[in-house]
Amino acid sequence: MRSVSIVGIGQTPVGELWDLSARHLAYQAISSALAEAGVEQADALFVGNMLSGNLLDQEHLGALVADFCGLHGIETAKVEAACASGAAALRVGAMAVASGFHDIVIVAGLEKMTDTVGKDTTAGLATAADAEYEALHGVSFVGLNALIMQRYMYEYDVPLDAFAGFSINAHRNGANNPKAMFQDAITLDDYVRAPVIATPINIMDSSPVCDGAAALILAPTEWAHRFTTNHHRGAVRILASASANDTLAVHDRRDPLFLQAAQISSQKALRQAGVALEDLDLFELHDAFTIMTALSLESNGFARRGEGWRMAQESEIGLNGRLPISTMGGLKSRGHPVGATGVYQIVECVQQLTGTAGANQIPQARLAMAQNIGGSGATIVTHILGS
Amino acid sequence: MRSVSIVGIGQTPVGELWDLSARHLAYQAISSALAEAGVEQADALFVGNMLSGNLLDQEHLGALVADFCGLHGIETAKVEAACASGAAALRVGAMAVASGFHDIVIVAGLEKMTDTVGKDTTAGLATAADAEYEALHGVSFVGLNALIMQRYMYEYDVPLDAFAGFSINAHRNGANNPKAMFQDAITLDDYVRAPVIATPINIMDSSPVCDGAAALILAPTEWAHRFTTNHHRGAVRILASASANDTLAVHDRRDPLFLQAAQISSQKALRQAGVALEDLDLFELHDAFTIMTALSLESNGFARRGEGWRMAQESEIGLNGRLPISTMGGLKSRGHPVGATGVYQIVECVQQLTGTAGANQIPQARLAMAQNIGGSGATIVTHILGS
Repeated sequence: MRSVSIVGIGQTPVGELWDLSARHLAYQAISSALAEAGVEQADALFVGNMLSGNLLDQEHLGALVADFCGLHGIETAKVEAACASGAAALRVGAMAVASGFHDIVIVAGLEKMTDTVGKDTTAGLATAADAEYEALHGVSFVGLNALIMQRYMYEYDVPLDAFAGFSINAHRNGANNPKAMFQDAITLDDYVRAPVIATPINIMDSSPVCDGAAALILAPTEWAHRFTTNHHRGAVRILASASANDTLAVHDRRDPLFLQAAQISSQKALRQAGVALEDLDLFELHDAFTIMTALSLESNGFARRGEGWRMAQESEIGLNGRLPISTMGGLKSRGHPVGATGVYQIVECVQQLTGTAGANQIPQARLAMAQNIGGSGATIVTHILGS
Repeated sequence: MRSVSIVGIGQTPVGELWDLSARHLAYQAISSALAEAGVEQADALFVGNMLSGNLLDQEHLGALVADFCGLHGIETAKVEAACASGAAALRVGAMAVASGFHDIVIVAGLEKMTDTVGKDTTAGLATAADAEYEALHGVSFVGLNALIMQRYMYEYDVPLDAFAGFSINAHRNGANNPKAMFQDAITLDDYVRAPVIATPINIMDSSPVCDGAAALILAPTEWAHRFTTNHHRGAVRILASASANDTLAVHDRRDPLFLQAAQISSQKALRQAGVALEDLDLFELHDAFTIMTALSLESNGFARRGEGWRMAQESEIGLNGRLPISTMGGLKSRGHPVGATGVYQIVECVQQLTGTAGANQIPQARLAMAQNIGGSGATIVTHILGS
């Protein structure tokens, strides 16, 4: 198996980008990633996307994006695993290079959720859940997470504002990320007074609906130096990649307060990379909702069960904390263009590992873990990257 | 790179299966493939599917299907490339085994197109085309193929019934396939009197809307004997796999009468396998419309340009002909559950190569090529299999 490196990255700003269609977003991210790697062609393009069929009446997205980018005669496909589509696409790209099927592969994450015509984004997001046993009964995706959060607060006797620190940390970091959707820090008061969406989830617990695209150029590690001599950024190696699934419906899960697929995929990834949790310099986790942040910290072993919320303070998760998370704003502040998120997380890890994270740079960051969650934990993909 | 073999196959009958939802179809195909391989677990499941997001309001299909099949803690994802989704998923599965990421991988093709609630299947199929530049203007997917067929007939001065033999051949073979949707032979008279859908395409030129699922179990070739000792079928090796793209919109294509991606992917596959066109014992091509059969024969080099339609006779394409095609009924008679079709094609090649194709068995078949087309030629995936 060949070792795989990331030799170029690209990303669009995240937001309500009404003047850009899906193809334009993808083009911006891919063309800047190709430029950074100093290549004009690739052997394959894998697009992580969740909602184009449902919201845009557009499938065949791999072919569409490649065509619009002027790439012909190459392999193209879309990879979908709900909100974990981006990391799932990265896995496919990594397999393509590791196997020798391809040498240079583009992995793009792409989602266009706003400015859709005659479509219901909330219903679209519910396609991540079980359509026949969850969505059909009217529960939205926020609703499912609200049930989990309610249960967590009851089970562990946790106060309503216990999660505020996760949101405050994300916004503090997003304020320094020029690509973030929300570039304003928030206070505890902002959190406490935020409108509730689905009890107990308020708007500050929840990541926003938005558009965005991000891209990575993959190449065999042994060739990586060829692509990185012309720009300031070095190559970053994919030290580990693992994916695991769990029940789709929350009501089928043995324990809705434990992300078993997070545990399985991160333990597998740590073994592959030969490192321990304590070795990680940062953890880009999937903070689609603050409850997911707490469950992620617990399920991956950073906190004991029922105590993940206690890490919601700057000394723990801030840029100078024990375990920096959401270092460029996370899903909450950078934004959560669902199928693109997994690729944004990797782009941000590459920024940290190459010393190009700007004001949010973590000094001497050498080892980063990213975790992308599909649905309420049915697909969880973990990557460990090293400089 | 490890060599990859197919050690188990499964398929549901194709048809309007109103009593089976997507998950039930997938379960039937996967469980019979696992049983044939004699395994109960796998490391990954990749589902080829095009329309679940658009027609079923269900994404996250990899996780859904794995969960319903009782498979947890494994990698799951959906792979989409319009009607080439099945073969695109097989490529991902093959890369997973070839790279060493996984050992035992399930590749399923799945589509549920009938009995959808409040959805328009014709509009769904148009998501394979360019939503903003083709579908938005009202052209259906049949309509796009009708434009191509019209142009072909004009350019090469071909009569209306020139394509009949392709349909007659497919139905002749489908009549002996117990899994086929249509198990009745047709006559030239049936073809000539068939109702027209979009001039000049009639109902006998066109594959049907239907439901179905098919599955493959992949393993490293060096281990293949472990899985095939307990059943009559031997393992079949994937000798070559290649994929190429072309412009998405037909109006952007340099020449709408030539499938450049077919040429690129088949030439690449032939080189990989180290064989020539003349060596092939059968060719499972993508006869979604009879015009696509003619273009496929020409673009892959079996016929000169403008002369593919001359092969529409039993001595050329019948089971005892020069190049048997659609040997189990093809998309026309077996049916075309779009995202599943690419996997059905492989299942049928495996039947032929293992001497289990029943009444349609091609004597001493040793080498088979399958080609799966997405859209009107924007994604074309070619596999060559050997016994």
